[in-house]
Amino acid sequence: MQTTTTELDLVVKMTLTAWKAQNNSLNKLLNELTEEQLQKEIAPGRNRGIYLLGHLVAVHDNMLPVLDLGEKLFPELYTVFVKNPDQKNKNLPTVADLKEKMQAIDTKLKEFFQACSSTQWLERHTSVSAEDFVKEPHRNKLNIIISRTNHIAYHLGQIMLFK
Amino acid sequence: MQTTTTELDLVVKMTLTAWKAQNNSLNKLLNELTEEQLQKEIAPGRNRGIYLLGHLVAVHDNMLPVLDLGEKLFPELYTVFVKNPDQKNKNLPTVADLKEKMQAIDTKLKEFFQACSSTQWLERHTSVSAEDFVKEPHRNKLNIIISRTNHIAYHLGQIMLFK
Repeated sequence: MQTTTTELDLVVKMTLTAWKAQNNSLNKLLNELTEEQLQKEIAPGRNRGIYLLGHLVAVHDNMLPVLDLGEKLFPELYTVFVKNPDQKNKNLPTVADLKEKMQAIDTKLKEFFQACSSTQWLERHTSVSAEDFVKEPHRNKLNIIISRTNHIAYHLGQIMLFK
Repeated sequence: MQTTTTELDLVVKMTLTAWKAQNNSLNKLLNELTEEQLQKEIAPGRNRGIYLLGHLVAVHDNMLPVLDLGEKLFPELYTVFVKNPDQKNKNLPTVADLKEKMQAIDTKLKEFFQACSSTQWLERHTSVSAEDFVKEPHRNKLNIIISRTNHIAYHLGQIMLFK
């Protein structure tokens, strides 16, 4: 049995729309919060808002190599915000700086989103070998979007506690 | 151009796998937390853990009518946990009771997941009219799963603060 490309296109579009919706909610929230608010912990003893923002920027930056779009733009962030926990005594980049970096990454991702066909979305991402991909075809580029969309939602729920 | 059903099946499966992963993470976390912990607020002045648990149960229960699987199993929960905010002075059902209800809903959803073909996933959900669905084919049953998966992730990030 065959289905038209339209059905696959539709589901790919739904997935990308969900990513955009979470991203928009995050950006809207970040624009409503002050630098001062984001310097606080989201709950007593937990991560600071600024750490979570940096964490999201670093994880999205890492999507570039995983989606085969080139190297990370800001590799230094990965060490601070992914490989290490929030070190409370350490100064982090400013909110304005992190937001600007997020924007630069987002621009690159958006360019790719516009150029990528549904079939290309189902190609393997770079964290899986060609050999494994034959057995595990779900480890494709679209799945990166699904997983990173849930990742935004997870931390959005936390950052929302500042409101 | 035509694509085989396999590609659509794959993307549908990826979406359902993401739902299951979030659900599993939630259940795992709930099994690690005590009734006493969940009675506390996730952050000062914010929702109690038990309210968020009830909220998730009520929202998942509402998926049954939206996916055309019959009426809600526990309609009384919708008023308490969706239509109203957490009323801190009010006693809510116990964690054990809510978990049991979640299980009952999950069983019904799982039965549907097993029986539903990829093409059926792209049929309209009951919150959209047949007329509107012609213009907005993304308002299908699979999109409910995408949106509710992100909804779990959002609150999971909050409930995780108890750990």
